[in-house]
Amino acid sequence: MSNVEHLTLSQAATLIRTGQLSSLEVVEAILRRIDALEASLHAWVTIDREAVLAQARLRDAEWRQSGPRGPLHGIPVGCKDILYTAGLKTTACSRVYAEFVPAYDATAVSRLKQAGAVILGKTVCTEFAVNDPPPTCNAWNRAHTPGGSSSGSAVAVATQMCFATVDTQTAGDILRPAAYNGVVGFKPTYGRISHYGVIPVAWSLDTVGMLTRSVEDAALLLQVLAGPDLHDPRASSSPRADYAASLASQQHAPRLGLVRQYFYEHADQEVHVHTDQVVEALRQAGAQIEEIVLPVDLTLLHAAHRIIVSSECAAYHQARFVTHPDDYGPKLREFIELGMVTPVVPYLQAQRLRQRFGRTLQAAFEGVDALLTPATPSGAPADHSTTGSPILQIPWTLCGFPMLALPSGLTSERLPLGLQFVGPPFREEQLLATAHWCEQALCFQFVPPSEE
Amino acid sequence: MSNVEHLTLSQAATLIRTGQLSSLEVVEAILRRIDALEASLHAWVTIDREAVLAQARLRDAEWRQSGPRGPLHGIPVGCKDILYTAGLKTTACSRVYAEFVPAYDATAVSRLKQAGAVILGKTVCTEFAVNDPPPTCNAWNRAHTPGGSSSGSAVAVATQMCFATVDTQTAGDILRPAAYNGVVGFKPTYGRISHYGVIPVAWSLDTVGMLTRSVEDAALLLQVLAGPDLHDPRASSSPRADYAASLASQQHAPRLGLVRQYFYEHADQEVHVHTDQVVEALRQAGAQIEEIVLPVDLTLLHAAHRIIVSSECAAYHQARFVTHPDDYGPKLREFIELGMVTPVVPYLQAQRLRQRFGRTLQAAFEGVDALLTPATPSGAPADHSTTGSPILQIPWTLCGFPMLALPSGLTSERLPLGLQFVGPPFREEQLLATAHWCEQALCFQFVPPSEE
Repeated sequence: MSNVEHLTLSQAATLIRTGQLSSLEVVEAILRRIDALEASLHAWVTIDREAVLAQARLRDAEWRQSGPRGPLHGIPVGCKDILYTAGLKTTACSRVYAEFVPAYDATAVSRLKQAGAVILGKTVCTEFAVNDPPPTCNAWNRAHTPGGSSSGSAVAVATQMCFATVDTQTAGDILRPAAYNGVVGFKPTYGRISHYGVIPVAWSLDTVGMLTRSVEDAALLLQVLAGPDLHDPRASSSPRADYAASLASQQHAPRLGLVRQYFYEHADQEVHVHTDQVVEALRQAGAQIEEIVLPVDLTLLHAAHRIIVSSECAAYHQARFVTHPDDYGPKLREFIELGMVTPVVPYLQAQRLRQRFGRTLQAAFEGVDALLTPATPSGAPADHSTTGSPILQIPWTLCGFPMLALPSGLTSERLPLGLQFVGPPFREEQLLATAHWCEQALCFQFVPPSEE
Repeated sequence: MSNVEHLTLSQAATLIRTGQLSSLEVVEAILRRIDALEASLHAWVTIDREAVLAQARLRDAEWRQSGPRGPLHGIPVGCKDILYTAGLKTTACSRVYAEFVPAYDATAVSRLKQAGAVILGKTVCTEFAVNDPPPTCNAWNRAHTPGGSSSGSAVAVATQMCFATVDTQTAGDILRPAAYNGVVGFKPTYGRISHYGVIPVAWSLDTVGMLTRSVEDAALLLQVLAGPDLHDPRASSSPRADYAASLASQQHAPRLGLVRQYFYEHADQEVHVHTDQVVEALRQAGAQIEEIVLPVDLTLLHAAHRIIVSSECAAYHQARFVTHPDDYGPKLREFIELGMVTPVVPYLQAQRLRQRFGRTLQAAFEGVDALLTPATPSGAPADHSTTGSPILQIPWTLCGFPMLALPSGLTSERLPLGLQFVGPPFREEQLLATAHWCEQALCFQFVPPSEE
């Protein structure tokens, strides 16, 4: 089979499970794709080719002997370089962990393996998943930022160097690069997926999620990764739905709450026009869309987010930072230094504020399946000194809501734009079904221009 | 029926439910008891006699019309004065809330009412449930402290001014006064009971619990109070057992892990001898008891507890404290002032430490039903300038474990001593069954000397 890399995760997984494709064929195709593109994109930190090929051969042998291990049998999956991978370097793209090889897997990684996946390699992120720009280039235009912090993941998935990656979000770390590179980015509810074995940014916000090329693929990965974990008290025992089945069972056209307030104020004119056009297309397709005015001023959350992230960042890094400040990039330093001088009372007040806002914002979901906003203030900036702005993700990440970015079109410069769907806590099945309906209705094909 | 006040909560509840006793008879007997004792004990802040009698009459009318509302039908229950009671003053024994009348009930209070209970009144606590001594006297000797912060509750239950009270623990606030006054004190797992509508001390530790005269009564109250609550994200959806049934189903003599390390080091000689004697009695009765050495140094937790409590205390009180410092007692002031100058990093490190210790300490419960320690370093001190020491509760409260104090004997000065049972998180049924077995085996009768 040629062009295996063009398949979605779900398509490739079905072909392997039913014996129409071998894991080795898939992995070899993916490695050829990486060979062709990586030199100009810088999406990967570590790929152990021999180990990947050996894993693929092992999966094929397992399949012949006893059938597929699970829903991801034989499928190569990339992991952001802050997830612990046993025996595989995990650097957080930092000087501090430059040579670190974990002895065990993050829970998310071990669940991938239990489902049969092959760990393809580690994708580039910003240093410690904060704001210092990575070497990675945008999938659609090398002069533009890929976004951050899951920079390499978004570019690898967009350019078909990978079907899907497992990532984390603390501000806009998954949805922003997803939108900038034209792929699906999904962050479930805070606590839905165990964070054990993931290098923290700010543990009261950090959430494991994924980048894929379809909503169906995001649902499949959530099915594999979600669930309680003895190693992580934050990992919720909240009941899981059958996420894959929920996509098929979506009976009605969704009811969407468009939020212009705040989200349009922080976005450029092209994003306003684009979002209004897409909303009109969804309406034509049958979606019920009403504009919703939130009962709170979301800008009040910016300071709370900054205080929480810098405080928890400082708590994690301080011991090393005081003796080795030069091991840290300038934007991360700024966070650590801010956290080191922050008193505890504003931190606790920030935590209380986000809890209060979280409770208040839940009321906005009454009568709608999801809220709808633009995913980013603009297309990816033509500026490698920034990773763009997470401002449209911050309120939702801070309050722990599940959210998904869906590619929705291109700017006049042919850079991707996306929609952002937000759902109530622990109702991912509803959010995924809604986004899936819209994905089918919009029917966009997103492939970056051919390279070189 | 005479001497209704001598009954346990469960006995009185059964008699009311089966029509052998009216709520009014019970409430009148309890009010007579309070009239006889309160002047010398100072256990109550607020009792609205007319409202209490009206509630009792209403319950009796309900019973005649449609039978009992629930397991506590017609039973008067006391509430620590930091639980919101709609229409009934809630002062936290502070100048700040001296005239405060809440408009709604704490979730724990509304669950009591749903179960048919009559809210008898509000019991004295230390100011804002911290360390400034209350006016209350020990049930066994007026010259001794009752302990704190649930001072009035413990004395009221011990002297039969009440069958049971609903309280809170942040350090040793329930178990210490329970042991000092010879009653059962039970703090379930952090998050087991909603904390909505309770004035906070330190919300990452505060846990609602109860004081009763038997383990059976504690199980009955837990059954009524436990469960998730939309108003409190900390209230766990962890599955509940049938706690009352679990007492009856205890098949085997329990396996207990005696922890001398730390607990004997902080207790006096009389407590060592007493605990060893009680352990021997339990062994004679058939319990399997082995000494357990914990894998950690619990003294490392003292600073973490102090930092967390003072930080969260300061975050709650700071706004008023800076303008009205004289509204606060000296020990509470010290906490608030400490919290106001604490940087965020040590607070976050304290939070991480307790999570790490919590995970490590869980291993100590392998192969035993509960851990066993003395409940207090000594009998209640003859000193009204202190509420005694919570040092034997702090490690367990800090890590969120469920714990129960059981009266086990008297000092040479005829002051109560107690055992402390500790169980793994969210396994209260196992802890209650174990303590119940020991209660039956020891068969102590605890009634304070007759008064006046």
